[in-house]
Amino acid sequence: MNSSTPQTNSFDIDCTLGYELPQPTHFLFQIHAMHGRDQQVSAESLELDPAIDSHVYVDPLSHHRFLRLQAPAGAFTLRYRATVQIAPRRWSADAPEVPIEQLPDDVMHHLMPTRYCESDLLGRAAIRMFGALPRGRSRVDAICDWIHANIEYQIGTTDATTTARDVFVRGVGVCRDFAHLGVTFCRALNIPARMAVGYAQFDEPPPDFHAMFEAFLGGDWVMFDPTRLSPVEDLVRIASGRDAKDVAFSTIFGPARMLTMAPLVARSR
Amino acid sequence: MNSSTPQTNSFDIDCTLGYELPQPTHFLFQIHAMHGRDQQVSAESLELDPAIDSHVYVDPLSHHRFLRLQAPAGAFTLRYRATVQIAPRRWSADAPEVPIEQLPDDVMHHLMPTRYCESDLLGRAAIRMFGALPRGRSRVDAICDWIHANIEYQIGTTDATTTARDVFVRGVGVCRDFAHLGVTFCRALNIPARMAVGYAQFDEPPPDFHAMFEAFLGGDWVMFDPTRLSPVEDLVRIASGRDAKDVAFSTIFGPARMLTMAPLVARSR
Amino acid sequence: MNSSTPQTNSFDIDCTLGYELPQPTHFLFQIHAMHGRDQQVSAESLELDPAIDSHVYVDPLSHHRFLRLQAPAGAFTLRYRATVQIAPRRWSADAPEVPIEQLPDDVMHHLMPTRYCESDLLGRAAIRMFGALPRGRSRVDAICDWIHANIEYQIGTTDATTTARDVFVRGVGVCRDFAHLGVTFCRALNIPARMAVGYAQFDEPPPDFHAMFEAFLGGDWVMFDPTRLSPVEDLVRIASGRDAKDVAFSTIFGPARMLTMAPLVARSR
Amino acid sequence: MNSSTPQTNSFDIDCTLGYELPQPTHFLFQIHAMHGRDQQVSAESLELDPAIDSHVYVDPLSHHRFLRLQAPAGAFTLRYRATVQIAPRRWSADAPEVPIEQLPDDVMHHLMPTRYCESDLLGRAAIRMFGALPRGRSRVDAICDWIHANIEYQIGTTDATTTARDVFVRGVGVCRDFAHLGVTFCRALNIPARMAVGYAQFDEPPPDFHAMFEAFLGGDWVMFDPTRLSPVEDLVRIASGRDAKDVAFSTIFGPARMLTMAPLVARSR
Repeated sequence: MNSSTPQTNSFDIDCTLGYELPQPTHFLFQIHAMHGRDQQVSAESLELDPAIDSHVYVDPLSHHRFLRLQAPAGAFTLRYRATVQIAPRRWSADAPEVPIEQLPDDVMHHLMPTRYCESDLLGRAAIRMFGALPRGRSRVDAICDWIHANIEYQIGTTDATTTARDVFVRGVGVCRDFAHLGVTFCRALNIPARMAVGYAQFDEPPPDFHAMFEAFLGGDWVMFDPTRLSPVEDLVRIASGRDAKDVAFSTIFGPARMLTMAPLVARSR
Repeated sequence: MNSSTPQTNSFDIDCTLGYELPQPTHFLFQIHAMHGRDQQVSAESLELDPAIDSHVYVDPLSHHRFLRLQAPAGAFTLRYRATVQIAPRRWSADAPEVPIEQLPDDVMHHLMPTRYCESDLLGRAAIRMFGALPRGRSRVDAICDWIHANIEYQIGTTDATTTARDVFVRGVGVCRDFAHLGVTFCRALNIPARMAVGYAQFDEPPPDFHAMFEAFLGGDWVMFDPTRLSPVEDLVRIASGRDAKDVAFSTIFGPARMLTMAPLVARSR
Repeated sequence: MNSSTPQTNSFDIDCTLGYELPQPTHFLFQIHAMHGRDQQVSAESLELDPAIDSHVYVDPLSHHRFLRLQAPAGAFTLRYRATVQIAPRRWSADAPEVPIEQLPDDVMHHLMPTRYCESDLLGRAAIRMFGALPRGRSRVDAICDWIHANIEYQIGTTDATTTARDVFVRGVGVCRDFAHLGVTFCRALNIPARMAVGYAQFDEPPPDFHAMFEAFLGGDWVMFDPTRLSPVEDLVRIASGRDAKDVAFSTIFGPARMLTMAPLVARSR
Repeated sequence: MNSSTPQTNSFDIDCTLGYELPQPTHFLFQIHAMHGRDQQVSAESLELDPAIDSHVYVDPLSHHRFLRLQAPAGAFTLRYRATVQIAPRRWSADAPEVPIEQLPDDVMHHLMPTRYCESDLLGRAAIRMFGALPRGRSRVDAICDWIHANIEYQIGTTDATTTARDVFVRGVGVCRDFAHLGVTFCRALNIPARMAVGYAQFDEPPPDFHAMFEAFLGGDWVMFDPTRLSPVEDLVRIASGRDAKDVAFSTIFGPARMLTMAPLVARSR
């Protein structure tokens, strides 16, 4: 899971989103590949049809970007293309957990429960299942193993209101649900954790944005994918956030019908 | 868990409940020992202070009884005493599950989820954990083992709104919560199940009504206590019902302050 | 809402249900028109394809019937036809509420919360909104008015796990959700209430079983339809129960794909 | 509600917190008065008993501060004293709502649901109740009026897991619950909102930290207190955050028993 080739990998993104809007509608998109950390965007373009104004905001802390625009009524299409280099991701297989008193101040809020990650409610379950395991990266691997073994991956079983608690109870979900549960167990064990979303290649299921999660281990954010659908080395990160609400690929302030969603990515060459 | 002495056991109940009522208040009590099945009530008395009218209803199907009365404002005390014989309870260690198509018609509704037992929500979890086990009583024993190992018994952690889902998520509860979870898992596996409440002896915790559950196995209702606080042979049954709402020892239609709750029981001689 | 013609009305039911079954599957159907109370079934037939054994159970207390059968793998179709006479339903517009201490013993359990009707959780809201209204049928009418004004009827917004609490929070649902909320508010106000399901005529939406609710007023069960989709006089009752779990038109013990659901009803001549 | 005297007000804080710790325990306290915006801390002191190391972190975006320390096993007491000047708070009675497309980028995340504020679930209810009202501050005042009229203030009715949904359903809560519901309704209406906590004077109930909420109106964060327990002008702010999880006065990483909580504040002179 942790192996990586030494050379930088390059990816081409070609993402099209299309909507039918009954009225002028404000959008907040998070589709831009992250430019920072271990990722570099060497080229990118954005096409809007109709060609309307938009602007991109760069978050000063997280370095992720979001796009805002006010689309007119009618058909609206967005196409984002980018070429992204990802430096080799070599996360140590034995990265230690950071004792609570040594956690950096600006990481502390990643211990808190959020809309989709009720780490307070699932605290006892997390401690019962994982509390006695040796501390360190292997404990987060054990969390991923548990999720993979106990939660069924099935498209269409959950919706935008499904939380980690629901996933734990119902035993089924999709990538964002798997990630939420991973985040939740980590936080309950005092391991800071957050959601990471981006572009990923997989044959099955159909093209979609992908969600993984990151745990703070050995002073770094280490990525995990409890769905095992895609290698963590190859996720072209868009953003990391507290949970899916922070990193939704689109937040739409009004009624809209999505006609197209094709967030394609391919390894270059 | 299933051993029993061949002779009938006799128990003396002495149950006092006291309330302070700001206004005239209607009560429905379920405190009478069940007279039927493997239990016989050889003597009983009811004292009310003040001495008011009351009446006892006998449910035509379940044979359990409830007491209704309209208490005036002020202090109100009830004392119920009974002597009860329980025939030896010899439930077979290998009682089989009854295939769904052979279940009696009047037992079918004990497969349905109820207020506190969301067997629909926990269906997948039940099947994942217990679905592959050999069918029969040992599967219900395995459910009890799981509950005992994974749910912490702690007084004061749950309340009248806590359901089996909550207990599963939070990993803590008291006897009624343990019983609800047992009922829920059984129903999810198509084993009819219901709650049983009554009088039980235990040193710790302080005197209280006790809750167990019954699963329909081999054509009979077999009792289980996942708390392991009291032998199932010694529960002096008050009633069996779909869940705690059916068998609450008191349902009070108005504000009331409970001053005394002492549901004592002792093995005779 | 309460007007009715003095003569008996006659209805023809023609209900077809079709399934594709990957394996032999046990079914419990509640599709038989109730024969009792104000309804008489003058003729009925049941066709099963393939022609398999089945049996009908008549509940000794509620008089409603359910059908059980074990269908083989493959296509399975059921057709139920009946002619039903409904006596004029003349529920008084000023039927009184029955004081709690005068409620019949066998009605008391219709005050309890159930899987879909958390009258305990919504007690305060019910009392705040309806507690000060004059007691009697007009109070239940006010409940229906509130539901009709505040809950949006929209097919596809809720599912088999949606409870009255969810409907209250989300403000949207279908007929069963409307009925559950009505039942819940009534119980919270100490008015016994239960769900009633049956066959109803409406142009929109597409043919489906319909759900209403009944409140115990003036010693009788008075029917209410907060959706206002169908006159209460014309519901051909199948069953009344604590909530939708008691009266589901089909409970399927295994995987199945429904191919046809056409519960048609028409007023005869 | 919005009146304010023209001169700066001065407040003296004297806050003592005491704990009994079974083991060395890490704490994150948010008790420091905010130094920034309309507040100035002119003097402050912190006493720890035993005298241990601690450090204060200043959040670069929000300017609020938190204190971290590692307390040894045994008794631990913290005393924080401060003198704070609050400039007159003159929020316009007719501050307009900011159209979504004009909201500042760094305010957008205050539209998102959080652990305690499920604005997604309560969206329809918010729109039904407040959607047709004229936009602007008066709409948030109407939200506060609704909360004050429909939610009962009662200490001890909610706990650390209670969310805005629960408060809406159950109709009861304390100041943090009132604030969560206000935040939730605002976000559902596309008005950015967040929780504000601090020191407040009130005779009843007993001394405690207080919670209000802020809505983004007319380009500024306007404070509201739907409990009406304390004038918004007099809240000595500690912090503003997404919800109570962001601004808890103490987050304790381990078991602890609180012995003393006395967050006193008095107007100087």
